[in-house]
Amino acid sequence: MERNIQVSELDRRAVEDQDVEIVERKGIGHPDSICDGIAESVSRALSQLYLDRVGKVLHYNTDETQLVAGRAAPAFGGGEVIEPIYILIVGRATKEYDGKQLPVDSTALSAAREYLSERIPELEFGHDVIVDVKLGEGSGDLQDVFGEDAVEVPMANDTSFGVGHAPLTETETIVFSAEHELNTTYADSHPELGPDVKIMGKREGDEIDITVAAAMVDSYINDFDEYDTAVENVRTFVTELAQEYTDRSVNVDVNTADDYDEGSIYLTVTGTSAEMGDDGSVGRGNRANGLITPNRPMSMEATSGKNPVNHIGKIYNLLSTKIAESVVAEVDGIRDLQVRLLSQIGRPIDQPHVADAQVVTVDGVDVSDVEAEIRAIIDRELADVTDITRQTIEGDISTF
Amino acid sequence: MERNIQVSELDRRAVEDQDVEIVERKGIGHPDSICDGIAESVSRALSQLYLDRVGKVLHYNTDETQLVAGRAAPAFGGGEVIEPIYILIVGRATKEYDGKQLPVDSTALSAAREYLSERIPELEFGHDVIVDVKLGEGSGDLQDVFGEDAVEVPMANDTSFGVGHAPLTETETIVFSAEHELNTTYADSHPELGPDVKIMGKREGDEIDITVAAAMVDSYINDFDEYDTAVENVRTFVTELAQEYTDRSVNVDVNTADDYDEGSIYLTVTGTSAEMGDDGSVGRGNRANGLITPNRPMSMEATSGKNPVNHIGKIYNLLSTKIAESVVAEVDGIRDLQVRLLSQIGRPIDQPHVADAQVVTVDGVDVSDVEAEIRAIIDRELADVTDITRQTIEGDISTF
Amino acid sequence: MERNIQVSELDRRAVEDQDVEIVERKGIGHPDSICDGIAESVSRALSQLYLDRVGKVLHYNTDETQLVAGRAAPAFGGGEVIEPIYILIVGRATKEYDGKQLPVDSTALSAAREYLSERIPELEFGHDVIVDVKLGEGSGDLQDVFGEDAVEVPMANDTSFGVGHAPLTETETIVFSAEHELNTTYADSHPELGPDVKIMGKREGDEIDITVAAAMVDSYINDFDEYDTAVENVRTFVTELAQEYTDRSVNVDVNTADDYDEGSIYLTVTGTSAEMGDDGSVGRGNRANGLITPNRPMSMEATSGKNPVNHIGKIYNLLSTKIAESVVAEVDGIRDLQVRLLSQIGRPIDQPHVADAQVVTVDGVDVSDVEAEIRAIIDRELADVTDITRQTIEGDISTF
Amino acid sequence: MERNIQVSELDRRAVEDQDVEIVERKGIGHPDSICDGIAESVSRALSQLYLDRVGKVLHYNTDETQLVAGRAAPAFGGGEVIEPIYILIVGRATKEYDGKQLPVDSTALSAAREYLSERIPELEFGHDVIVDVKLGEGSGDLQDVFGEDAVEVPMANDTSFGVGHAPLTETETIVFSAEHELNTTYADSHPELGPDVKIMGKREGDEIDITVAAAMVDSYINDFDEYDTAVENVRTFVTELAQEYTDRSVNVDVNTADDYDEGSIYLTVTGTSAEMGDDGSVGRGNRANGLITPNRPMSMEATSGKNPVNHIGKIYNLLSTKIAESVVAEVDGIRDLQVRLLSQIGRPIDQPHVADAQVVTVDGVDVSDVEAEIRAIIDRELADVTDITRQTIEGDISTF
Repeated sequence: MERNIQVSELDRRAVEDQDVEIVERKGIGHPDSICDGIAESVSRALSQLYLDRVGKVLHYNTDETQLVAGRAAPAFGGGEVIEPIYILIVGRATKEYDGKQLPVDSTALSAAREYLSERIPELEFGHDVIVDVKLGEGSGDLQDVFGEDAVEVPMANDTSFGVGHAPLTETETIVFSAEHELNTTYADSHPELGPDVKIMGKREGDEIDITVAAAMVDSYINDFDEYDTAVENVRTFVTELAQEYTDRSVNVDVNTADDYDEGSIYLTVTGTSAEMGDDGSVGRGNRANGLITPNRPMSMEATSGKNPVNHIGKIYNLLSTKIAESVVAEVDGIRDLQVRLLSQIGRPIDQPHVADAQVVTVDGVDVSDVEAEIRAIIDRELADVTDITRQTIEGDISTF
Repeated sequence: MERNIQVSELDRRAVEDQDVEIVERKGIGHPDSICDGIAESVSRALSQLYLDRVGKVLHYNTDETQLVAGRAAPAFGGGEVIEPIYILIVGRATKEYDGKQLPVDSTALSAAREYLSERIPELEFGHDVIVDVKLGEGSGDLQDVFGEDAVEVPMANDTSFGVGHAPLTETETIVFSAEHELNTTYADSHPELGPDVKIMGKREGDEIDITVAAAMVDSYINDFDEYDTAVENVRTFVTELAQEYTDRSVNVDVNTADDYDEGSIYLTVTGTSAEMGDDGSVGRGNRANGLITPNRPMSMEATSGKNPVNHIGKIYNLLSTKIAESVVAEVDGIRDLQVRLLSQIGRPIDQPHVADAQVVTVDGVDVSDVEAEIRAIIDRELADVTDITRQTIEGDISTF
Repeated sequence: MERNIQVSELDRRAVEDQDVEIVERKGIGHPDSICDGIAESVSRALSQLYLDRVGKVLHYNTDETQLVAGRAAPAFGGGEVIEPIYILIVGRATKEYDGKQLPVDSTALSAAREYLSERIPELEFGHDVIVDVKLGEGSGDLQDVFGEDAVEVPMANDTSFGVGHAPLTETETIVFSAEHELNTTYADSHPELGPDVKIMGKREGDEIDITVAAAMVDSYINDFDEYDTAVENVRTFVTELAQEYTDRSVNVDVNTADDYDEGSIYLTVTGTSAEMGDDGSVGRGNRANGLITPNRPMSMEATSGKNPVNHIGKIYNLLSTKIAESVVAEVDGIRDLQVRLLSQIGRPIDQPHVADAQVVTVDGVDVSDVEAEIRAIIDRELADVTDITRQTIEGDISTF
Repeated sequence: MERNIQVSELDRRAVEDQDVEIVERKGIGHPDSICDGIAESVSRALSQLYLDRVGKVLHYNTDETQLVAGRAAPAFGGGEVIEPIYILIVGRATKEYDGKQLPVDSTALSAAREYLSERIPELEFGHDVIVDVKLGEGSGDLQDVFGEDAVEVPMANDTSFGVGHAPLTETETIVFSAEHELNTTYADSHPELGPDVKIMGKREGDEIDITVAAAMVDSYINDFDEYDTAVENVRTFVTELAQEYTDRSVNVDVNTADDYDEGSIYLTVTGTSAEMGDDGSVGRGNRANGLITPNRPMSMEATSGKNPVNHIGKIYNLLSTKIAESVVAEVDGIRDLQVRLLSQIGRPIDQPHVADAQVVTVDGVDVSDVEAEIRAIIDRELADVTDITRQTIEGDISTF
C-alpha cells in the first residue's frame, strides 16, 4: 500500500529569515528536564525488563514524573540540602504476565536512582533526594500485549501527530550546542558548573542575545571572586561557541538576576534549582528535538517516558525530526523544512494518515526540483519506523 | 515612556486558508484538565486568602498538580471506583507573613475539594479520590512580597513571552464550542455524559473531521442500547452545532475506539478516564486560549496555577489572547492576527520588551490601514494589564 | 475434645489491695486512639464488604494506621487549621476474589472519613485532614480464604496469647468511666470539650489522683474566663463521677500544664492535639479493655484493625476480657481475676493450648469453691468464640 | 533534697518460679524492630546534629516510623523484590534555631539509609526500599530549647512511669541471647540467615519451648535440602545455646509453619518479612529491655525515637532497667527485682515522684537485709540520670 506523502511549499519565510526568533533549552539539570530524564530512563528500563523477561515489550506508560523542590542552604565552600527533593514516578505498567510477577516498581525506582547518580552527580540519593513510585495497572484494553510478533508493525494507539524541523537556525544551534557543550566538555574541566543550565536565545534581525542561567556548585566556589570568575568563564565559553555558528552579532549574559550587593547569586549545593523552590514535571520543557521553538509548530505531547513501541505521539515526534534531518542532510537547496506525521488510530504506524513535508527552498531551487527526493526519503524512513523504537530503548535517541 | 509596539504583516496564510489544520481541546474532565483546573482554583484561593489576610498577594506558584489514575469497575446501571484517584497538589507558597501563619495548605486542599465537587460531581471525595498537598516555601528571593503598593505595576519575574490569536478558525470554534456546550447545556439535560470530553478537529481543505471521545456515566446507562443512544445523541448534537459555524463538510465521530462485540465501550463510573488508568498533570493540555493549535505558535508555559500578579508567563499568555480578541472585535478587515508579548525580567509588566502584532488582512485592506488602530488597542490593553490579574483572581478568565 | 482449662490462685494481692496503682486511658480523640478507631472502622468495613460480596470474610489486616500531626492556630472564638493532619491507612487486603475486583481501597478510605466525621466532628475532612491509603496484598499463604464454611471454627493464625481481667478496680473504673462520660453525656451539653481527653489515674494507698488533659474547642470559648469555667466544669464533673465509685479520697486535676500568664492553655480548633504536633499510630494506646494497666499483665498485640475471624491476637484479647467479666458477673467471691488464653498455630481457636484463670478470692472463699463454676463459664465462652467475631464485625465490641 | 525511694517485698513469686511464663523477642530484622531501629537511629542522628550545630539538643520526637510491606518473589538461588518496601519517618523536630536552618529532614533520611544498610544489608536502598520523611515542627511550647545548661538536670516533660526488672529468668535469657547470637556470631558464618528472627519462649513448669521463626535469604539457598539444613543448623545452635543457660528441658522448633509439600517455606530475598506482606511500626514490639514479657509489668511507652534529654517515658524505662541490673549485680540474695520510676511533670528528672523497688529475696535473706544497699544504688543511679541521655545519644544503650 502506497504511503500518503505530500510535499509542498511552506507558506512562510524560513525561521532564519524572520525578524524575531525565540529559542529556549532547559539543560539536563533543570527540574523539568530531570523529570523528563527520569521518565525516559524508567521507560527504557521497563522496555529492557520486558524484553529480558518475556521477549517483548508489554504495555506501560511512564510519562508523568513529578518533582517537588527541596530546600537548601548553599554556602561558599559547600553548603547542604536541608529538605530533600521529592520525586514521584507516576504511570502505568504491566505487573504480571503469564502468571509471573514482574518487578516494575523496583526497576523504575532503581532506574531513577541510577539516572540521577549519573546526570546530577552532586545529588546524594537518600540524603538530598527521595524517589517514590506510584505505578498502576493500565486499563483493561491497554494491558493487552503488543509487539507480540516482531515482524509486524504495531498499530497506532491514538489519533495524534508529530512534527519535526530542519535545519536548525543559527540561534537554535547556538542554544542547543551551548547547553550540550557546557554540560559535557566544559563541565568536565569546570566542576563548579552544575547541570541546571537554562539557555534562552532571542534574535531580533541580526542581533542574537543569549541568556544563560547557570547553577554554580558551592563546594567548588569559595568566594564572590571565584563565583565571578566562574560566571565569566561561562560567558566567554558560550560567546566563543556562538561565534563558531554565526556571523551575526552575539551578546551573552550569564546569571543576570545576580545581585552581588544583596548577596543574591545563583549558588547551589547540588547544581540544580530543584534543591530550592523549583518544582518540575514531565513534558513541560524541551520538545523532542531538545528545544522550545515558538516560531515553529510544536506538539504538546510529552515524549519522555512514553512507550516507544506503539505510542504514536512519541514515535511520530521523534521520527518526523529524524526525517527532517535526513532530508536536509541528503538533499541540497533546502532552507527550512517542516515535517508533520498524522496518525490514525488502529492503522499501522508506518502508514500515517498523512506525511506532510513543507519546504522553503533556497533561491534558484523550486519545490518540484526536490520533491521526488524528499518523498523517497520519507518513504524510506517510514518503512524503517521500528528503528525509532529500537534506538529509543537502547538510549540512542534523546527525547528532550 | 512609550511602549515598544510593532505591527506588521504576518508572513503566512491565515490558518483558515491553510490546507491542513489540526485542533484539539481536552474537556474539563480530562485528567490533564482536572489538574489545570485544580491548580488554577488553588491559585485563586491563595490569592483571595492573601488579599483577605494581608491585603496583597504574596508569593506563590501552584502550577504543578499531579494526578495518579485510579481503578474502577464500571457497569451498566452503576459500577464503582475500586482504587481512588490520587491527586498531589505541588507548589510554593508563603506560609508566614509578619509573624502570622497563613493556612495555605488547608486552603489549597479545600479549594481542590470544592473544585472537584463542582466540576466532576460524580467523583465522591473521600471515596473515589484522595487529595494530598506538598507546598513548600519559595526560594528566599522569591518570597519577597510583591504588589505591596496596588498602584504600582509589578516587575516581570522572568524573561518570557506570551502569544495570542484571533479570530478562531471555524475548526477551532467548533472544537472549542462543542466541548463547552457539551459540558454545559447538553450535560444539564443529559446526565449520562461525563465531563471528560476530548475533541479533536482535523480539517483538510474543506473537509472537517471532528472526533469526540466522551466518557459516559454508567449509572445513567443500563445497556448497550442506551449507550448507543447516548453516543448517537452526542454525535447529532455536535454535528448540528458544527453546522452553525461552517458551511464546510463536517463529519463527526464519537467514541470510535468502541467495540461492542468485545464489550469495550467508553463507560465510566465518574465521567472521567482518571478513574481508570489515565494520569494527568498541569500544563500538558490546552493552552491559555483553551485549545491546542499546532498550526499556530504556542507557548509551552503552563498558565494554570501560576501567580497572576507578576508571573509573566501567565499574564502575557492571557493578555496577548485578550488583545488579539479585542483587536479583531474592534477593527475591521482582519483575517488572522497573532500577538506576541516578550517580557524582560525586572521591567514593569506594562512595558514589554516588545509587543508584536502580526496580521493577515482581508483582501482590499492593507496593514497600514489598520496599524494605528491596532497599536492603540495594544497600548490601551497594556496600560490595563493589572486587569488581567484582577479578573484571574475573581475567576472571570479561564486559563485552559 | 476436652479443653485445657486451668484454674488456680493468683500469686499476688488483688490490684485493688496493692499499694500503688497506675491506670491510663487515652480518649477517643487522642491521636493514638484516632488511629485505633480508624483501623477498627476500616476493619469492620472490609469485613462487611467481604460478607456482602462473597459471603465470607477474606484475608485482611489493617492494624497500621499512621497519623502525622498537623499545624493549627487556635484562637478564642475560633481559630483554624493551618496544615492538615495526614493519616495513612496501612495494611493488607484481598483485592480480587474469583475474578472479581473488590473496592477495598475506596471502602477503607470512606470508612475512615465516616469514622472521623462521627467521632471528631470538628475536623473538616478535606480541609483539616487528609486521608491516604496504602493497602497491599497479603503474602501468598495468607491470602487463602478462611471462614469458608461458617460452621467450622477457624484455625489460629499464630502462636499468641490474650489476657483479660475483672473486675476493674475503683481507679480503673473511674478512669474508664470518666473518659466515657465526658465524651458522651458531658460533651453533648458542653460542645467546648473536644474528644481528646486523656486521663491518668494514680492511687497510692487510699489517695486517688485523677489527672485529666482535656482539649477545649476554641470556637466555643471566647476568653480566659470561659476557658477557666470550662476547665472547672470538667473538674467538678469528674470529681462527682469519681465519688460515685469510691469512698477513697479523690483529687482531680485538669489541664495542669496550663500557664495563663504565658497564655499557654490547652485550646484547640478541632478538639484533638493531632492538629498540632501530636502524631499517633495504632496499638500504642489503650489495650483491648480500654485501659493501660501496668499493674496487670498486658498483651502488646494491637487489637484494632486486625481481622476478627482468625487473628488470634485480637480474638483472645477480646475473649479473655469477656470471660473475666462473665465469671465475675456470675460467680460470687472473686476479688480479682486474670484470664490468659494461649493459642497454638494451626489449632482451632476454640481449643487454646491452655486457658488459664488465676483468681484472688475474697476472705472466706477458697479457689476450690469456685473452680468448677469458673471452668464451666470458660468452657462455654470458648465454645462460643465465633460470637466475638460477629460482635466485632457489627461494632458491638470496642477494641481500644 | 532527698529522693523518695521505697523498697519493699514484691507481692508475688519470682517469675522464675511461676508455673507458666511467656517471653518474646522480635529480632532486628522484624518489621516492627526495623521501625524501632530507624526511629532510634534518626533520634541519635538528630541529637548529634543539634549538638554539633548549636551545642545542645533541641526539641524533637521521632518515635513514629511506619513501614508498609513490599512484595517479593523469593526463589532458590536468588529471587527479587517486586514492589519496594515503603518506610515513612514521622515526627517533630526543630528546623530552625537562632535564624539558622538545620537539615533535620535530610539528616533523618540518611540516618535511616545508613541504619538499613548496616542492619539489613541484603536490602538494596533505592530498589528494595523507599524511605520518605514527614517531620513537622513541634507545638509552640515544646519547641522551646532544653538542655541549655548542661549542668542542670532537665524537667520531666510528662507524668509517666518506667519499669525495669532483673535478673532475667532462664527463659528470658535464652530468648534474648538466642536472637542476639543468631544475628551476630551465627549470621557471620551463616549468611543464609536473615536478620528477621522472631523468638517465642514458653515455659510450663520445667519444660521450655523455644519457637524460632527465621527468615532465610534465598541467594544462599539453592534447594529444599539446603533450606532444610539451614533450618536444622539454627535449631541445633539455639538448642545448644539454651542448654548453657538452663538445666530444664528445652525443646526448640524452627519455622514450624513450613510445609515442604506445599512448597511453603520461610524463604526471603532480603532476610525480612517486610519484603512481603508484614507491615511494621514503632513501639509495637520489644520493650526497652529487648523483650516482651507479659508476666511482668510493662510500659506501653515507645522508647525508640524519643528525645533522650527530657522524654521521661524513654529515660525512666531505660534507667529503671539499668537500676535493676545494677542492684542485682551488686547485691546478693535477690531472686527477682522490679523497679518502677514515676515522674511528675515539671520536676527534675533525677527527683522522681517515687522510685519504688520491689524484691523477691532468696531463702534466708530478708528485704530488710538488702534494703539499704538497694536504696543507695537507686540514689546513685538517679543522681547519674543524665548518663542515660549521653549513652543513648552515643548509641551505647539499645532501646528495643
